[in-house]
Amino acid sequence: MKTAVYVDNLSLEEVRERWRRALEGAGCLTPAAETVAVAQALGRITAAPLFARRSSPFYNAAAMDGIAVRFQDTAGASERRPLRLPAGRYQRVNTGNALPAGYDAVVMIEDVHFPGDGSAEIIHPVPPWQHVRAIGEDIVATELILPQGHVIRPIDQGALLAAGVLEAAVVRPPEVAIIPTGSELIAPETEPAPGNIIEFNSHILAGEVAAWGGRPDRCPPVADDPDALRAGIGAAVAGHDLVIVNAGASVGTRDYTAAVLSDLGEVVVRGVNIKPGKPVILALVDGTPVIGLPGYPVSAVLTARLFVRPLLYAMQGIETPAVPTAAGIMARPVASKIGVEEYVRVKLGVVGGKTMITPV
Amino acid sequence: MKTAVYVDNLSLEEVRERWRRALEGAGCLTPAAETVAVAQALGRITAAPLFARRSSPFYNAAAMDGIAVRFQDTAGASERRPLRLPAGRYQRVNTGNALPAGYDAVVMIEDVHFPGDGSAEIIHPVPPWQHVRAIGEDIVATELILPQGHVIRPIDQGALLAAGVLEAAVVRPPEVAIIPTGSELIAPETEPAPGNIIEFNSHILAGEVAAWGGRPDRCPPVADDPDALRAGIGAAVAGHDLVIVNAGASVGTRDYTAAVLSDLGEVVVRGVNIKPGKPVILALVDGTPVIGLPGYPVSAVLTARLFVRPLLYAMQGIETPAVPTAAGIMARPVASKIGVEEYVRVKLGVVGGKTMITPV
Repeated sequence: MKTAVYVDNLSLEEVRERWRRALEGAGCLTPAAETVAVAQALGRITAAPLFARRSSPFYNAAAMDGIAVRFQDTAGASERRPLRLPAGRYQRVNTGNALPAGYDAVVMIEDVHFPGDGSAEIIHPVPPWQHVRAIGEDIVATELILPQGHVIRPIDQGALLAAGVLEAAVVRPPEVAIIPTGSELIAPETEPAPGNIIEFNSHILAGEVAAWGGRPDRCPPVADDPDALRAGIGAAVAGHDLVIVNAGASVGTRDYTAAVLSDLGEVVVRGVNIKPGKPVILALVDGTPVIGLPGYPVSAVLTARLFVRPLLYAMQGIETPAVPTAAGIMARPVASKIGVEEYVRVKLGVVGGKTMITPV
Repeated sequence: MKTAVYVDNLSLEEVRERWRRALEGAGCLTPAAETVAVAQALGRITAAPLFARRSSPFYNAAAMDGIAVRFQDTAGASERRPLRLPAGRYQRVNTGNALPAGYDAVVMIEDVHFPGDGSAEIIHPVPPWQHVRAIGEDIVATELILPQGHVIRPIDQGALLAAGVLEAAVVRPPEVAIIPTGSELIAPETEPAPGNIIEFNSHILAGEVAAWGGRPDRCPPVADDPDALRAGIGAAVAGHDLVIVNAGASVGTRDYTAAVLSDLGEVVVRGVNIKPGKPVILALVDGTPVIGLPGYPVSAVLTARLFVRPLLYAMQGIETPAVPTAAGIMARPVASKIGVEEYVRVKLGVVGGKTMITPV
C-alpha cells in the first residue's frame, strides 16, 4: 500500500507562475466569443468593442413640453411688451417630439400664454436650440459605446439598443466539467450506509463555477478505478474548457488521479505548500486544463478559489475581482510551519470599535 | 390642452410612509413560497427555516489514513518499547471510512510500522476517539441549518445535501410586468422615423428587476389611449405581483396613467418632491401595486431604485441591501430648490489622496 507523495511541494507563488506559463503555452487563456441579442446580453462580457450604429437622438427633439419657434422671431419679447406669434409661426410640441422642419428652439409651456385667437404670447426672447436635444446629443453614430472586456449592465443594454446595436459579440462562458471520484460516494437522494460519503462537493463547486462566470457540468461520480477515471477525464476534456477532478478522500483515489493525468497528458504541478489544499494537481490534457482538488469540502472550496477562480476569469479575458479584505487584531496567535502558506478560517467581530479576529 | 398637475408633491419620506402603509394594508408584503430541489436552489431565499434530517457524518469516520485501534490496546507504547498489534487487533482505514465495529481510535499511517508479519507496530499510546470524526461532528440531525430569509450560497447547498435535505421552501420571485406607454415608442429592431422613440427603458428596467430578485415580464408598448392603457394595466395586475407603467414622454400619456389608475383602483401617491422623478405615481389596483415611472431614462432608473427596489426586497421578505456610499469634497457647489430632494449624478476621482466629487 503506497501513501501519497507530493513530489513538487512548491510555494503558491512558484505554482502560480509555472501554471500560468503552461496555460499560456497551451493557448488556454484566449476567450472564445459568441453572438447574442443585446436584449439577452445582461451580465455577459463584451468580446470586442461595440460602436453606435445610429445617433441618439437621431433627430432634433423637443426637450420640454411647449411650443417650437424660430429663435429670430422671439427677439424683443419682454414682460412689458409680450410678443404674439400668430398661428403658423409656432407649433405645439411635447417632450421627445421631433422639432418640426424650419424651427430651431422650444419655449416651455409654462412660459406661454394662449390668448385664444390661435396665437401664442411669450415674454422672453430665446437663444437658438433652447430646450432642443440635438441629433447625437447622447450618442453619435460610430462612437464607442462599450469597450472590450466590459460586463454588460441593464443601462448598457439601453444605450446599445438606443444606438441601433441589436447584437453583440460576447465571451462564451468556459464550459467546466466537475468529476467527483471515489467508490464511497453516493448521490444525496440515496439512502446511505456506513462508509458512504454523500457527494455534495460537486454542487458546491458548480455554484462557485457559475458565480465566477463558468458553465458547470456535474458529471456522475467515478469509482476508484484507474480505467474508469481515464475514461471519465478523457471524455470530459473533449467537450469542456476546464475539467475539475474532485478526489475522493482515500489515498488510492488521489494516487490514481495523478497517475492517470500523467498518462493522459502533462502534470504541471503536483502538490503545493499550502494548508489546507496541499494535494492539488494541475495538469494539461490535449490542451485542456485539468485541476485535481482535494476531497475534504473546506480544502476543495479553498483550492477552487485559489486555482479555478483566477483561471475562469483569465479565460473570460477580464481581471479577477478583488476579494474583500479586513484588518484586525488576532484574539489568539496562530503558529504555522515554516515554508507553509496557511489559510485559517476566522470569525470577525467588532468589540469596542476594534475588529477582533478569532480563528475557528 | 391641460398640463400635468402633481397634486400631492409630498416629501420622499412622507411618500415612503404613505406607500408602506397602503402596501401593508393590502397584504402586498407577504412573500409567496414555492418548493424547489436544493440542487437548483442557488441564490434563492429560504421561505422557512431548514433543519437537518440526518447527522453528518452519520457514522463514526476515520479522519486520517491509518489503522483503527482500541485505545486500551495502545497503553504503554513508546519509542523505546514499540507495541505490536497482531492482525485482528487493528484494521487498515482510509480517511472517510466508517470506523469498524469495536474500534474507537485511529493511528496515522505515518506513525505505523508494518514489520511484514501481519502485525502493526506503534510507538505512542492514543486517547479514545483520536482522529475519529464522530457522528454529528459537522451537523446533528434536527439542528437548524439555515434560518428563514437566507440567500442560499453554494456552501449552503452542500450542507443541506449532506444533512439529507433535498428540497427547500423558497420565496417565489415577484412577477413584475413592465408596460411602456406612448404612441411614439417603437421596438429597437424597427427602422425609426423622426418623432419615434426607441423603446429601451423596458430592457433597462427588466435587467434591474432581475438584479433585485424579481421576474421581469416586458409587455408590448401601449399607445396613448386611455382604453388601451386601461386594458393593458387590467390584464397585467391579474397575473403579476407588481406592475410598472413607464410613461411616454408626452403630457397626454402622463395624464392618462393617473386617470386610468384612479379609475381602476386607488392612487396612493401622485407626485413626489424629488428631482428628477417628480411625476412618480404609486397606486393599488385589485390589491396589486402599480408604479408609474417617468419616461426619461435617467429619471426612470432613479425612481425605480427609490420605489421598485425596496418594494421587491420587502416582497421577498429580506432587508434591502445597503447601497455603497462614499464621502468626498465637491469640486463645485450644487444648489437645490428649497424643499426638493435632488439626486445629482457625479463622478468620483481620487486627487492627491482626497476623493473629489464632480457633478456631471
